[in-house]
Amino acid sequence: MHEERGTSESGIIAALERSFGGTLAARVAAIGIGDDAAVLRTVRGPIVWTIDTAVDGTHFDRRLLSLSEVGARSFHAAVSDLAAMGGRPLAALSNLVVPRSLGGRAVRAIAAGQARAARELGCPVVGGNLAKGEQLSVTTTALGTVSTPLLRSGARVGDELWLIGDVGLAAAGLRWLTARSRTRTARTSRGSGACVRAWRRPRALVREGRALVGRATAAIDVSDGLAGDAAHVAEESGARLVIEEGSLRAALRPELLEVAEALGVDPLMLALAGGEDYALLATGPARARPRIAHRIGRVERGRGVRLERHDGSLVVPPSGFDHFSGRA
Amino acid sequence: MHEERGTSESGIIAALERSFGGTLAARVAAIGIGDDAAVLRTVRGPIVWTIDTAVDGTHFDRRLLSLSEVGARSFHAAVSDLAAMGGRPLAALSNLVVPRSLGGRAVRAIAAGQARAARELGCPVVGGNLAKGEQLSVTTTALGTVSTPLLRSGARVGDELWLIGDVGLAAAGLRWLTARSRTRTARTSRGSGACVRAWRRPRALVREGRALVGRATAAIDVSDGLAGDAAHVAEESGARLVIEEGSLRAALRPELLEVAEALGVDPLMLALAGGEDYALLATGPARARPRIAHRIGRVERGRGVRLERHDGSLVVPPSGFDHFSGRA
Repeated sequence: MHEERGTSESGIIAALERSFGGTLAARVAAIGIGDDAAVLRTVRGPIVWTIDTAVDGTHFDRRLLSLSEVGARSFHAAVSDLAAMGGRPLAALSNLVVPRSLGGRAVRAIAAGQARAARELGCPVVGGNLAKGEQLSVTTTALGTVSTPLLRSGARVGDELWLIGDVGLAAAGLRWLTARSRTRTARTSRGSGACVRAWRRPRALVREGRALVGRATAAIDVSDGLAGDAAHVAEESGARLVIEEGSLRAALRPELLEVAEALGVDPLMLALAGGEDYALLATGPARARPRIAHRIGRVERGRGVRLERHDGSLVVPPSGFDHFSGRA
Repeated sequence: MHEERGTSESGIIAALERSFGGTLAARVAAIGIGDDAAVLRTVRGPIVWTIDTAVDGTHFDRRLLSLSEVGARSFHAAVSDLAAMGGRPLAALSNLVVPRSLGGRAVRAIAAGQARAARELGCPVVGGNLAKGEQLSVTTTALGTVSTPLLRSGARVGDELWLIGDVGLAAAGLRWLTARSRTRTARTSRGSGACVRAWRRPRALVREGRALVGRATAAIDVSDGLAGDAAHVAEESGARLVIEEGSLRAALRPELLEVAEALGVDPLMLALAGGEDYALLATGPARARPRIAHRIGRVERGRGVRLERHDGSLVVPPSGFDHFSGRA
């Protein structure tokens, strides 16, 4: 764990080390949390490795999230990338840029959220870095092991399109919170609770991603809306992904339908163009589909992503969610 | 390589992938630069792993550095942590937070600097992340392999204290540039060129760090001044590090002496309390000292760091360099 001189007041770093030290699993046998670099003793390739950053004002709005939630969300977002490759999380490093005005209490709150996520995901924090800056940001880099990584490029013509986990709920939750703060009402419902929870406390689908290895031909995590992430798979695989409206609607959660109706938006739009779901989108042959996967479409010859309407017409689905404004 | 929607104008990401793709060495056999996470096929533990961030206005001043230099410096700073552990760099991920106002040209310039450093260090960039934010920051996470990691905690009473590489030059170079921009003169000299170069283009001492494995008992990279980093070794090892003034002065470069004189400061102060040298400080028995190492002191029973003056008196050395202001 690195620090800058002057950042450390009354043992912030020591507190971080205690917080993250509690996440250490014996299997990692890491040493060196107080050293220049972290040491992992038990790594055997191939490994998957990712980095993700959440910047105050770009990726999150502190009026809507606690700092502990900011830490946990950012951690799950990073590990979700490993999940999408079928990886098993091994360890993480935490890198915080914190304005002087926020102080040690803020650092400890973020670290507490990261430590909670680390325990949930079995992915100990083995080191990191703390720096001063004008704008708060939380960066997590995570390593995982994997037998055969799931890539975006493996989709084959004739494959099914699979959805694992929920889409649209997080976008609905964010819109609900934003609308509520504008109208200053305190209305809640079963549906809004589930949507707000999905946005505030996303969960990386690690077990689900590992269950896809040996079954799926391609996978990606849905962080920018189903349509946008499907487009990455289509492009990397050189194929067309067709999302079937009826199948996708059937896979949506009733809580999403309830909140979408209250907000006056089409739940399908939230599913396609929403963001921050951390569901998994995969492709694979029908015979290999795991029980956790909903079939929501198919892979065809061609390019790009199409939405197949109930009448059989193919349209370009909406995409382009903006994290911060919540606008699609 | 991740991006946010809206960040990518005219293929910034594609340009980054080309830039970093050129750094890929066959031995890493990485796949997935366009995927959720990078995949490394050839990893065998133990590994060393670090993350380092450079924030505009905290760690660098863009009036004094080009964006390409910002990218390269940050990369060398991260890899220097691996060097201090005796690690061999394997691969890196690059994480950029870039204000909208800077645009794609700035991203490409930073990436060009990182790619240059990656080639210099044999440490390919295999992925990363690009995000919008108000304040420019460059974060590098790097992985390396190591047989027996050099820790800060291994110094033993009776060991020598070794310096590998130069200290004080970078701090002298920064002061020189700052003084010159204040007085608007364009004076240069052989010494000032070397000092400015040391500050603008630091080099991680990878080969030197690896040469310490099996010889040194402890090591650290000198990023915050010799006195401050020696204090970390003393604390982690539970011993006292004594820096001998005469031996340290003898190890200083003539270019440093020249510039320190022109600046009217004691070169010893720049060496002890300066920063961003990325030299290595190590401890070890006399019989094991490698030829690249200068003996500058010894390890004794006790705590903390002391400077032994010519008259044999022991004093607490100055420390506390501030990256941005250049003030000790």
